[in-house]
Amino acid sequence: MSQPAANLAVPGFAPTAASIPPKDVNYRRPMAKNQPVWHTPLDPVNFLLRAALIYPKKVALAHLDVPYPVSYTYDVWAQRIQNLAYALIESGIKPGDRVAVIAPNCPMMADAHHAILAARGIITPLNYRLTKGEIQYILEHSGAKLILCDHEFTHLLPENHAPVIISQDTGRVGDPYEDFLARGRRFSQERGWSGLPIEPDENAGSCLCYTSGTTGRPKGVLTTYRGSYLAAVANAYETKMDLYSIYLWTLPMFHACGWTYPWAITFSFASQVTLRTVNYDLIWKNFKNSRISHYCAAPTVQIGIVNARHASYVEQPLRAIIAGAAPTAHLIGSLEKIGISVSHVYGLTETYGPFTISYDRPEYKTLTVDERSVFFARQGHSFATADEIRVIQHDNDSKDLVDIPKDGVVLGEITARGNVVMKEYFRDPKATAEAFKGGYFHSGDLAIWHPDGSIAVQDRSKDLIISGGENASSLAIEQVLSKFPPVLEATVVARPHEKWGERPMAFVILHSHEEGKWKGKDKEFEIELKKFARQSLPGFAVPEWVAIVKELPKTSTGKIQKNILRQRLAKL
Amino acid sequence: MSQPAANLAVPGFAPTAASIPPKDVNYRRPMAKNQPVWHTPLDPVNFLLRAALIYPKKVALAHLDVPYPVSYTYDVWAQRIQNLAYALIESGIKPGDRVAVIAPNCPMMADAHHAILAARGIITPLNYRLTKGEIQYILEHSGAKLILCDHEFTHLLPENHAPVIISQDTGRVGDPYEDFLARGRRFSQERGWSGLPIEPDENAGSCLCYTSGTTGRPKGVLTTYRGSYLAAVANAYETKMDLYSIYLWTLPMFHACGWTYPWAITFSFASQVTLRTVNYDLIWKNFKNSRISHYCAAPTVQIGIVNARHASYVEQPLRAIIAGAAPTAHLIGSLEKIGISVSHVYGLTETYGPFTISYDRPEYKTLTVDERSVFFARQGHSFATADEIRVIQHDNDSKDLVDIPKDGVVLGEITARGNVVMKEYFRDPKATAEAFKGGYFHSGDLAIWHPDGSIAVQDRSKDLIISGGENASSLAIEQVLSKFPPVLEATVVARPHEKWGERPMAFVILHSHEEGKWKGKDKEFEIELKKFARQSLPGFAVPEWVAIVKELPKTSTGKIQKNILRQRLAKL
Repeated sequence: MSQPAANLAVPGFAPTAASIPPKDVNYRRPMAKNQPVWHTPLDPVNFLLRAALIYPKKVALAHLDVPYPVSYTYDVWAQRIQNLAYALIESGIKPGDRVAVIAPNCPMMADAHHAILAARGIITPLNYRLTKGEIQYILEHSGAKLILCDHEFTHLLPENHAPVIISQDTGRVGDPYEDFLARGRRFSQERGWSGLPIEPDENAGSCLCYTSGTTGRPKGVLTTYRGSYLAAVANAYETKMDLYSIYLWTLPMFHACGWTYPWAITFSFASQVTLRTVNYDLIWKNFKNSRISHYCAAPTVQIGIVNARHASYVEQPLRAIIAGAAPTAHLIGSLEKIGISVSHVYGLTETYGPFTISYDRPEYKTLTVDERSVFFARQGHSFATADEIRVIQHDNDSKDLVDIPKDGVVLGEITARGNVVMKEYFRDPKATAEAFKGGYFHSGDLAIWHPDGSIAVQDRSKDLIISGGENASSLAIEQVLSKFPPVLEATVVARPHEKWGERPMAFVILHSHEEGKWKGKDKEFEIELKKFARQSLPGFAVPEWVAIVKELPKTSTGKIQKNILRQRLAKL
Repeated sequence: MSQPAANLAVPGFAPTAASIPPKDVNYRRPMAKNQPVWHTPLDPVNFLLRAALIYPKKVALAHLDVPYPVSYTYDVWAQRIQNLAYALIESGIKPGDRVAVIAPNCPMMADAHHAILAARGIITPLNYRLTKGEIQYILEHSGAKLILCDHEFTHLLPENHAPVIISQDTGRVGDPYEDFLARGRRFSQERGWSGLPIEPDENAGSCLCYTSGTTGRPKGVLTTYRGSYLAAVANAYETKMDLYSIYLWTLPMFHACGWTYPWAITFSFASQVTLRTVNYDLIWKNFKNSRISHYCAAPTVQIGIVNARHASYVEQPLRAIIAGAAPTAHLIGSLEKIGISVSHVYGLTETYGPFTISYDRPEYKTLTVDERSVFFARQGHSFATADEIRVIQHDNDSKDLVDIPKDGVVLGEITARGNVVMKEYFRDPKATAEAFKGGYFHSGDLAIWHPDGSIAVQDRSKDLIISGGENASSLAIEQVLSKFPPVLEATVVARPHEKWGERPMAFVILHSHEEGKWKGKDKEFEIELKKFARQSLPGFAVPEWVAIVKELPKTSTGKIQKNILRQRLAKL
């Protein structure tokens, strides 16, 4: 359980002079006068200040496998975040102003999740895998007044952009980002945290994350201080993070503000390691050398981890938090075999990332991996601080929402409400009203509802395959196909069919050791796969077509881009 | 880790018909119309409903070593709580009305902590060890409209009391309490939880607990739904309660609503075992047979547990949550030796019970028990959802609060603010204003503030001994005396002294195996004890007088009643 802190400290590295807190450092922020003695607005920045107060010399953040590695203890990191908050204020950021960040997982990106809130601005993290045009749209739509940009992504900046601070990701004097922090420190005149009043309205916007926008323009999801606080507490509690935890950033932090883990980590006094890219060699190096205890990733990244060349049994307790798609029995089994336990969570940007979890049950202990994974593949129940989920009739036009039966058969739409649901689509009251109709947020995800109250996502509405008048769930088909031993990963989409309207088409990636065996035998493979599929799928759900591919188009967060596959098929 | 559920189920017991939920049970409560989609009032009743939804067949509550043992699964327990809520409403309880409970730890007492809130009343638990006159005062002051009373304590009811429901603590048909629940069920007309709207104002009062009132009349501490929710989450997180936890009720639930553990238990889906009295045989029976994982108690009860005749090594992980006074090194060592780990917390009724915790540190692992206990004996830092503590100059008359230096030497008063501080002293605006002066709640407890931000309580203001002009902390002296091997428990109070103003007097209880050795040798013992004390205490702090006693006057929660000792001395 004890943390080998030495592995996270960077030998020979010294933080800049501006990063060193004063001797009499104070972590108390002023409270608005109208707050009663018994009321403090919920604000995740307080987690950082608690960590710095209680564990000042514990490593908060390590950025290791880069040309300029750095490692910050909590007291130093809190000072840097304070400096950034002051620098933002000096730059003219006022409460409610948006500050954009274009950066991979790196210290500046982590800093921003605390400092922008401490300055009472709204953090607007951008997906750096978007096109320049999309970036321009988001910068304009959000009205970002300032941009924090990593040196690798300056080419994404549009021509007439707001003022930008560029980070060379060095942590050393001479880096423009470090100069910016030093300026903040000077501007603070050593007022420290006492010069940074706590946001008095816990329902104020704190984060603005744009959805990836597979259909139409990206939408800006505005979330609050209160929601970020409560979602972070739930994530820390549900995945058992504590003082001894070390979190590895495999999930891009720009994705729904890293599912609120930037604050779940500080809430639990854990340490974090930032990785600029999803690199399986580095992930495994960190699993081993940094004694990682937690990481988040979509199944496709998990598949990469399990099959990486350095994969081997992990000695310390290591928990994989999986979302984005249901993990297959095969994947859960493969992870467990190398000592990685699985938490399957589900959510959307509109729900601060995860808001359901597939809960463990004492009786699962007696089941085989295959049996257990049937349950773990479900999206489960709302987690600790979220309201009970509702699955409603998605094809019902009445104003009142009507629950589907909890029979594990009927398909409905997942809806949610409560403290871990977004406040609005920014500057889009029409889309907000549409999403909130009936007093619940409509996810667009289709699920069945089991008698035990757990949900199992079947598809996005648009991913459903209407095959001969029957609803075929592409996810359910994928679950079956991925059990076929030669298959590493399978994806299924609808393809127009003259007779049946639509029929499923499967795209599969083979395990590397199977590629030779099936080379030039696509037809034989197709026959075998269909035979396998027929054992557990109704005829209308067995793929009509099968294509062996080398890779699949994926979003930056590892989700398969089914819309792109459908577009390709439309051209056939 | 897995829970042997069979040990908590009572063979042959069947809940009453009214306790059986309908087949299509629904755990969703109506929300006020003005709540936005993204906002749900924080309400600890939701924890119960989550537990019943997700783990309906898990044992929620077991009441074992009584003439009529019972055991309820979460679905049944939630139905009983729903019945009680309806019964209260049928009895005329309106939002904000007080419902008094006079009961030991038993199912009715546990039910009340959820049902009264579900009916939007205010739970007013009474200390059944008070006198009839004090009970009468509290019933009148609180204006309780209804009383739930255990059969053992009906003699405490004053002549003109509000309507009372008596429980025979049987859980069987014919018990007036069971009849009351059945009436509630009938009154509900099977509307279920959908007929019990969620309290729309999370800052509404939910609990009214009267302080034990060592000085003057008891004061009513009013706390809120929001505070109860956030304190319970922190208690569950900080003491690592989860699905596999089994909590034993050694702490009386009437004490500050059981330190919010009634809700911490449901938050974490744990099971609980109720014990009507602190009986060391039963405590050990449950440690062994019920695989208890958590319990709360003051040091004096912990001393009893360690020295009980059935005490032996505990196989499962078992955590003792200690508050009420600092545990000595000897006590921590004794607990650890039999496999019990220690969480030392601190708080007052005004802070929902615990609001600080002595945090673990990785570096403690290399220390001896004696070295570690020096740190663990500190009250530590504010816990997860509490605001940073302040220790202020207690002898400063200026309106503005002034922090004492964090030097581990200067003595100041512990003050607190934020979401886990009470809303007010009920119907006592003057006392509230006095307690809240300067925008912080004043605890009346004196502490030093260490450079690491942790606090160490030295004394209640009134327990401080002014010996020859020097401040002597009775707690610090007790810590030393309790290390003297023959001593089981030591208590020190001020006794008037002609020359020095005051001098410490020690009351000690000997270990039973030491009693024979010192029989009739009080003077020799005194000489030896003083010699021992002089090794680590300044002269003014060495007790001037020593008395060997068989027992010490204690409050119902195990706190030594120093005021009584002082009264005795005043008569000498």
